[in-house]
Amino acid sequence: MSAIEINKDFIEELIGLLDVHHADELVPILDKLYAQDIAEIFDDLDLDQAIYLTSLLEPQKKVNVIIELEPDVRGRFFKGYSSDQIAADFFTYMDSDDAADVLNALSTDQSKEILRKIEDKEHSKNIASLLKFPENTAGALMAKELIKVKLNWTVKQCTDEIRKQAEDVSKVYTAYVVNDYDELVGWIGLKRILLSSERMNIEEIYNDNVIYENTYASGEEVASTMRKYDLVALPIVDAFGRLVGRITFDDVMDYIKDEAEKDYQMLSGLSSGVGSGDSIWLLSKARLPWLIIGLFGGIGSSLVIGGFEEELQNNVQLALFMPLIMAMGGNVGVQSSSIMVQGLANNTLDSSGIFGKLGKEFMVGLLNGLVCSLLLLAYGYVFGNSQKIMITVSIALITIILLAAIVGTVIPLLLDKLKIDPALATGPFITTSNDLLGLFLYFLIGNIILGTV
Amino acid sequence: MSAIEINKDFIEELIGLLDVHHADELVPILDKLYAQDIAEIFDDLDLDQAIYLTSLLEPQKKVNVIIELEPDVRGRFFKGYSSDQIAADFFTYMDSDDAADVLNALSTDQSKEILRKIEDKEHSKNIASLLKFPENTAGALMAKELIKVKLNWTVKQCTDEIRKQAEDVSKVYTAYVVNDYDELVGWIGLKRILLSSERMNIEEIYNDNVIYENTYASGEEVASTMRKYDLVALPIVDAFGRLVGRITFDDVMDYIKDEAEKDYQMLSGLSSGVGSGDSIWLLSKARLPWLIIGLFGGIGSSLVIGGFEEELQNNVQLALFMPLIMAMGGNVGVQSSSIMVQGLANNTLDSSGIFGKLGKEFMVGLLNGLVCSLLLLAYGYVFGNSQKIMITVSIALITIILLAAIVGTVIPLLLDKLKIDPALATGPFITTSNDLLGLFLYFLIGNIILGTV
Repeated sequence: MSAIEINKDFIEELIGLLDVHHADELVPILDKLYAQDIAEIFDDLDLDQAIYLTSLLEPQKKVNVIIELEPDVRGRFFKGYSSDQIAADFFTYMDSDDAADVLNALSTDQSKEILRKIEDKEHSKNIASLLKFPENTAGALMAKELIKVKLNWTVKQCTDEIRKQAEDVSKVYTAYVVNDYDELVGWIGLKRILLSSERMNIEEIYNDNVIYENTYASGEEVASTMRKYDLVALPIVDAFGRLVGRITFDDVMDYIKDEAEKDYQMLSGLSSGVGSGDSIWLLSKARLPWLIIGLFGGIGSSLVIGGFEEELQNNVQLALFMPLIMAMGGNVGVQSSSIMVQGLANNTLDSSGIFGKLGKEFMVGLLNGLVCSLLLLAYGYVFGNSQKIMITVSIALITIILLAAIVGTVIPLLLDKLKIDPALATGPFITTSNDLLGLFLYFLIGNIILGTV
Repeated sequence: MSAIEINKDFIEELIGLLDVHHADELVPILDKLYAQDIAEIFDDLDLDQAIYLTSLLEPQKKVNVIIELEPDVRGRFFKGYSSDQIAADFFTYMDSDDAADVLNALSTDQSKEILRKIEDKEHSKNIASLLKFPENTAGALMAKELIKVKLNWTVKQCTDEIRKQAEDVSKVYTAYVVNDYDELVGWIGLKRILLSSERMNIEEIYNDNVIYENTYASGEEVASTMRKYDLVALPIVDAFGRLVGRITFDDVMDYIKDEAEKDYQMLSGLSSGVGSGDSIWLLSKARLPWLIIGLFGGIGSSLVIGGFEEELQNNVQLALFMPLIMAMGGNVGVQSSSIMVQGLANNTLDSSGIFGKLGKEFMVGLLNGLVCSLLLLAYGYVFGNSQKIMITVSIALITIILLAAIVGTVIPLLLDKLKIDPALATGPFITTSNDLLGLFLYFLIGNIILGTV
């Protein structure tokens, strides 16, 4: 909760004031709003209103609003400015990691032009250096802005450095300690600095047991390190151990959330990044690819069953339990694959090799398969179903539960080895392949037990 | 990455030193280890080794290790101590929120006894007050430890307060400003305090635009507020606006991760909290309930199809496309429901009411259904399948896609209105109900188009 509630009425009133350029009334209102709230209001503004509103903000807040905008909204907004203006007004006060994110969402040409026009050459070099790191690495996630202090400084020198950097480094929680070669050797929390006498040496008060990651560490590694050690910021070093950047908790919170949503959507059969607020067209486009996979799977299933058409004609009761076989194969496959995908994502897979995992899945499948088959046999016995059919279904059920468990375990591991996102193997993909396999085995077992035509 | 890599060899060596009580060598090694790493090593220690190791740690680190332990490991470890020892050694230096978490994992009797034996009555009262809040509320997530400063203080008084509290409040990023009635009126970052002259007044430098939540706010609200505004800590107020606690970023990072995993597991048909490292028995127990739902669904399907047995005998080709109908109904149902569940969890559902959402889902379903049906008709035409069958399947397909989309939208919304976790409606649950509905409609439409027996 914050002081002002942003609702429809509030936005309408604000738009009214913007249209008549009523700066006197607008400035105190905007002062009370956080950049994140102003960014949300941008959705409802036309270009003129947005430009006028922006002109009323102080430089740092202006930048904070820009980085909070959705990429498409920001793209439209930038159309109201020349590249020179964008570089000067928005990029001067932008942290290097945010600047790299904003540039990444623009066309290569526009991005290069803006980068060229940033006056502070040190700043533009920093931003450019971040653009070079591959996506989803610590290098691409980090910011260059940080407080760096020398091992042989006093606390006074350290405070002076923070004062000097205060404008560039908006979020200060920790100062990082380096030696004469710029190598990271420790850290000090701000509380410690505040409570130490000015004449003390950094050497006496710093913590030499520092947790860090390399620029090439993956986003997952960064997130899990920061989560494990409760770090508000994680220093990043290059291949020579030199301090080159830091990643702060807010970026990691967003990263964890985004990654979780991506996996969730993959499992649901949605292409990434849609939400219930998106347009009908976008929502359809996100779902259709997976539905078409399902459609082809269904056609494949019809061909498999078609191969057993005579069999089915003679034992039409076999058709009754097709849904059961499919549903169980699908459920088990999704269960096994998603346990693997989560284990891979969290780095919590135990050290037993692939055969250990398969053995375990086999035992779990056998246990679950036996329970389900016995329940099914009991049902058939009580309700007087054909014994031969029920035995066929039960044997098929155990077989399929076992197979689905193994397929669900192997495919994510295989994809991971091939450096493909294992989450691809969850959801519609695994369900479809298990449908085909399950139905084929079902009819094959039926063929053996019920005899050929 | 940290200084020491914890691998099998390292743990073996450490255990060797623990067995011979070699304190001189152990203390410097333990000094280099973070509490999180020591907690991981506990899994491999027996009770004697664990107790001896703990005796070598300094008080605050001892506590940090205890709170990082898995609840079952901690339960076993506590067996080596009396309640008096537990209260004195472990709870004295524990933050109130961690203490409440640890107590929550114990039996009510043991928890009460420990609480009674904590010497610092203020501290035990704080912990007890947190235990009263319902799970998953800001009140249950917050810690009582925070830096509180008065509006009329000087910066010097503020620094003195931080110095006084430094031992109790381990993580200090922000000081909260209150008025004479203890009501939250603003905040100051540590950087600002560090860079301000000691003689300045808090009133001159504090930020009066403060974001907060009430004790009864949900964990989701807390997480989304902190993520939106990039807050390192969020102050919590009671119903009278008085500052009563704060929630820090590390708890929220864990919360976001845990909630995402819960939803993911629900969607995969897994009971909460299993991982690939768990025992065969635990893994089977987590999966079986969902498999039994699937089993009953399958039996239900067999009854639905059984009702159309004669129909099927005469048109055995209808059986060929049952898997297609089921797979598509299942996929669409999961897609629609998980978009809703995510929207509800993120508070991003647009303001259009339930009819707006249904209308949208209807349009998306219609679009996807039309594309899939046309593809299917084209397939049937090219491969010369029976026209009547293909028309039946196509009409059934559109109908089922539309229905599954609507069911997938309505059920999560309904559960949410009934205050039940809407994530329950994803995964096996929605697939099973769509199977039943889909097959029934399929045969009904087949009955109409292909004529009764």
